[in-house]
Amino acid sequence: MTTVDAVDFGLILDRAAGRRYPLGQQVVDELRRRVQAGSLGPGERLPPVRGLASALGVTPETVAGAYKRLVEEGYLRGEVGRGTFVAAPPLRAEEDPLAPFEAGGALPPFANPAAAPGPPAHRDLLRLASHPGVVSFAASVAALELAPVEALRQALWDTLSEGGASALQVGATQGYPPLRAAIAQLLVQRGLNVDANTICITSGCQQGIDLAAKVFVAAGDTVLVEQPSFLGALEAFRARGARVIGVPIEGDGLRVEALPALIQRHRPKLLYCMPTYQNPTGRSLSAEKRRALLRIAAAYDLPIVEDDSAGFIHLDHDAAPPSLKAGDHAGYVIHLGTFSKIIAAGLRLGWLVADPPVFEKLVAAKYASDLSSDALVQRAVHRLLADGAIAAHLDRARAAYKERRDVLVAALRRPRALPPGATFDQPEGGFNLWLELPREGPTSTELFLEAVRRGVAFVPGPFFFSAGGGGPASIAALRGLRLSYSALAPADLERGVRLLSDALRSIMGAGQAAAMESVVY
Amino acid sequence: MTTVDAVDFGLILDRAAGRRYPLGQQVVDELRRRVQAGSLGPGERLPPVRGLASALGVTPETVAGAYKRLVEEGYLRGEVGRGTFVAAPPLRAEEDPLAPFEAGGALPPFANPAAAPGPPAHRDLLRLASHPGVVSFAASVAALELAPVEALRQALWDTLSEGGASALQVGATQGYPPLRAAIAQLLVQRGLNVDANTICITSGCQQGIDLAAKVFVAAGDTVLVEQPSFLGALEAFRARGARVIGVPIEGDGLRVEALPALIQRHRPKLLYCMPTYQNPTGRSLSAEKRRALLRIAAAYDLPIVEDDSAGFIHLDHDAAPPSLKAGDHAGYVIHLGTFSKIIAAGLRLGWLVADPPVFEKLVAAKYASDLSSDALVQRAVHRLLADGAIAAHLDRARAAYKERRDVLVAALRRPRALPPGATFDQPEGGFNLWLELPREGPTSTELFLEAVRRGVAFVPGPFFFSAGGGGPASIAALRGLRLSYSALAPADLERGVRLLSDALRSIMGAGQAAAMESVVY
Repeated sequence: MTTVDAVDFGLILDRAAGRRYPLGQQVVDELRRRVQAGSLGPGERLPPVRGLASALGVTPETVAGAYKRLVEEGYLRGEVGRGTFVAAPPLRAEEDPLAPFEAGGALPPFANPAAAPGPPAHRDLLRLASHPGVVSFAASVAALELAPVEALRQALWDTLSEGGASALQVGATQGYPPLRAAIAQLLVQRGLNVDANTICITSGCQQGIDLAAKVFVAAGDTVLVEQPSFLGALEAFRARGARVIGVPIEGDGLRVEALPALIQRHRPKLLYCMPTYQNPTGRSLSAEKRRALLRIAAAYDLPIVEDDSAGFIHLDHDAAPPSLKAGDHAGYVIHLGTFSKIIAAGLRLGWLVADPPVFEKLVAAKYASDLSSDALVQRAVHRLLADGAIAAHLDRARAAYKERRDVLVAALRRPRALPPGATFDQPEGGFNLWLELPREGPTSTELFLEAVRRGVAFVPGPFFFSAGGGGPASIAALRGLRLSYSALAPADLERGVRLLSDALRSIMGAGQAAAMESVVY
Repeated sequence: MTTVDAVDFGLILDRAAGRRYPLGQQVVDELRRRVQAGSLGPGERLPPVRGLASALGVTPETVAGAYKRLVEEGYLRGEVGRGTFVAAPPLRAEEDPLAPFEAGGALPPFANPAAAPGPPAHRDLLRLASHPGVVSFAASVAALELAPVEALRQALWDTLSEGGASALQVGATQGYPPLRAAIAQLLVQRGLNVDANTICITSGCQQGIDLAAKVFVAAGDTVLVEQPSFLGALEAFRARGARVIGVPIEGDGLRVEALPALIQRHRPKLLYCMPTYQNPTGRSLSAEKRRALLRIAAAYDLPIVEDDSAGFIHLDHDAAPPSLKAGDHAGYVIHLGTFSKIIAAGLRLGWLVADPPVFEKLVAAKYASDLSSDALVQRAVHRLLADGAIAAHLDRARAAYKERRDVLVAALRRPRALPPGATFDQPEGGFNLWLELPREGPTSTELFLEAVRRGVAFVPGPFFFSAGGGGPASIAALRGLRLSYSALAPADLERGVRLLSDALRSIMGAGQAAAMESVVY
C-alpha cells in the first residue's frame, strides 16, 4: 500500500474561480475524479488533513469537509487512529460485471493481499461510451471494418492445413523464428536494422510494458512517464508498487530538458514514453529531442521503454519519424510494437526489441508470465507478413485514417464548434486528437457526463494522468480530453462533433455560449 | 537481489558415500546443478564460507574449495569484500539462442535491474532432449498427433466467416462471455458449480500463476509449494522476489500435517499446489487431506492456488477426484485450468476461478499484464466446447494416454529394466511418472548426461525443486526424475525404456549392474 504525501499530491486549485467554483468543491471533485480514474486506488492513504490544507493553502476545515463528503459518497473511508483511505469504488450494480460479488457481501477472506492493483474504473466509463447509439470517440483502436478478415481466415486455414498439428506446438519463449525474422524486416520501415535474435514476441504491447516493469521496477521505485500517458502503462507500473511521476509533454514531445533534474531528484528506474504519435496527444518527439533523450539515458544509466504502437500509422508523410531505438547505439532502449494496432485490437500479438543483457532478462520474465504467445496466431500473422497482406492492409487503413482525421479536424474548426480558447493540434499519425478546453469552461469530466447524456463519448483527461506531477499538466488533466477518430466513419465523426458542441453549449454559462455563437475561427 | 542464508540453503550431503563421492565434490555438484536449473540465479549471493561450512558440518576449506572450483568453471564469481555471487551461466554458444549477445561482449548498460528473473537454463536441457533421434520423456504435453486440428481449423474458419471482423474485437479483460459460460459448464466435471462471472480467461495456466503472484506476493514474501513442483510456478514466484519453501509430497499428496508449523514459522502469503495428478509426481491429494487443507487455509487465512491443469486427464476412473475448489466454501482457493493440456501446448488459453474480492484483483492484474487474451482464439475454443468437439477429443486422448501409461509401466516393471531399489507409483492420471533411483546409484543428473548420449532424455529431479527445503525432499531431488509418457508412441516408450536401462547399466558400478541383471521384480 502506498501513502501519498501532500507535497506530491499535485492537486492544483483554481483560485480565480471564486464563488463560481469554491475551493472545497474543487478538492471534492478532483479527489473523486482520481478515485474514479483509478489514479487513487483502494486502500491508498490520503494525506493528513492539516498537511494537505497547508500544502494547498486552504483551511483544515475545507479539507476535512471534503474528506467527510467523499466518505458519505462512499469514495473514502476513515479508520480511527489511522487516517483516511480510498474505499472500494461504488460501482453501479446493473453495469458492473463484478456486481454479483459486491452483492454477495462476503467479507474479504484474505488479510493482506500484497500490491493489489487498482480497479479498472475506466471500464465503467467505456461501458457508458459503448452504449448503443452513442458516437464514441473513446476507442483508440484499429478500425474493425477495415480488418483483413479474409486474409487472416485464409492464413489460419492454410497454416493448419499445411502445418497440421505442428502449428499447435509450443515453441521457444522468444517466439516463432520466421515471425521474428519477418518483424525484423518490417522494422526497417521504422529505421531499425535489428537482428531477429533481439526480437521477442509478446502478447501485445501491454505485455511488453509489463515485462519491462517486472525486470526494472520493484515496489517503491520511481518510473517516469509522459504526462498525459497511456492508462495501461500507468496500471502496469502501479501494479508493481511503483511511484509514477509525469513529465509534461509539449508540441515537440516530452519536455526532455526537465529530465536531468527529475532524474537526480527521484532516481527513476525507467522512463516509459511514446515518441511517435503519442497516445493521447498525437504529438511526436522532435529529432533533436530524440538525440538529447538518448544522451540523457546514457549519462544517467536510465533504461527507456519506447512504446511504438502507432509507428506504422503515419498519415501525412511517407513514413513516421525513425524510432527512438534507431539511434540507440548504447542499448538503453526497449522498443515495443504490436499487431493489435495494425490488424485488430482483439489480436493480442506484439513484439519487443532489446539489446543484451536486458533481452535475456525480458525473455525470462516472459517465460514466468505466460511461457510463450499463442503458436497458431504467430504462424498465421507470419503468413500475412510474408505474403504482403499486412503491407497492403496498412496502405488501405492509413488512407482511411487520414480521411477520418481530416473530417474530425475540419468539423472541429468549423465556426461555433468549440468555445473560444479551446485548442488542439492536428495529429500527423496515430488514432487520436487531444483537445484542451478553455480554463474558464467546464472540466472534461463535467463535459463527459453531459456529452454521454446527449449521445457522444470520449475519454476525459484525468484517465491519462498519474497521481504525481502537477503544474500545467494538472490543468491539462482537468481541461484535456482525447478524441479517437480511427474507428469512426466520417458521418459519425461529423455527428459526434455536433453533439459535442451541443453538450459544450448546454453546460457552459450563457455568456460563454454566446461567445461560441459569435466567434469565427 | 536475494541473499541465501546458510540455514535455509537446504544442502543435504550424503555422508555415507565416503571416498566414492567426497563431500567437497557433492557441494560442487549440487551448487552447479542449482545454477544450471536456475534455482540459484545470476547475481544471487552465496552464503559466507564459514557460515555454510558450519551449517553443513564440513571444514571451511571444503566450502572454499568448492566455491573456487565453480568460479573457475564460470558458474560463480567472487567480488572483493562483498562475497561470492552466481555468475551469468556459461551457455554453449552453438546451442544458445542468445549466443549472439554473449558474443557481442558489450558491458551491461544498466546498473541495477531490479528483480531480474533467472535464466531459463532448462531450455538448454530441453534443447538436448529435442535433438532428432532422441526419445524424449521430457515433454509433459498433450500429444500433438492427437490434437483436433480439423475441428479447430473449421472452428476458426466459421468464427471469421460468421462473426466477421467482430471476432477480432477486443473484449472485457475477463474474457468472452460465452466461453466463460461454457467453461462453467465444463467445470461441473471437476465437481464445481460456479457462476460464469467468477471465471476469468487467462493466457494459459502459467498466467494464472503469475496473476496470483502479482496479487498476493511481494518481494521477500514466502510462498509454499509442493516439493517437487512445477518449474514454471517456481519461476513466477522467483520473479516476484519471493522466498519459495517446498513441502514434501507423499503417496497421498502434500504433507498437509506439516503445514501449520511451516505457516506459523514462515507466514507464507500463498500455497501453490496441484492436488490432482501432480506434476511431476502424478500423485493426488486424498479426500481427507483435501478437507484438512481447506480447514488449514481458513484457520490461517492462507490463499491457495490450485493448479488443476491435469484435472481432465483421468485414466483409471470415470472422473478425476473433485477439485479442491469444489469444497472451498470460504473462498480461499484460486482454481486454474488450461486448454493447453486438453488441446495442444501451443494454444495459450486457460482460465481461473476465484471468489470476491480476490477475483476483481486478479482481473485488474490481468488488465495490467496483457489487457485481455486473444479474441479470436477465445471464440474458436468456445465453438469447440459448444459443439462437443472437445468432449469427443478428450475421450480419444484419454484412451491413448492410458495405453501409453500402461506401456511405460509394463516396460519399467520388466526384469532388469531398473536397478533394485528404484521405485515409482503408477500414475492414475496426467502425463507423468516419477521414478526414484536407488540412493547408492547415480544421481538423476548423472544419468541424464549418459542417457542423452545414448538417445533418451527426461527431466532430472533438481528442475522441480526450490532452493529451500531439505531432508527427504533433497534426496528426491538428487535421485528422482520425471518420465512423461503423453507425447510418445508405444514403440518409442518401449525403446526409450530400453535405452534408459542401458544408460543405467553403463553408469552404475559393475556390482550393481550385475544386480540389475539378476533381480526379478
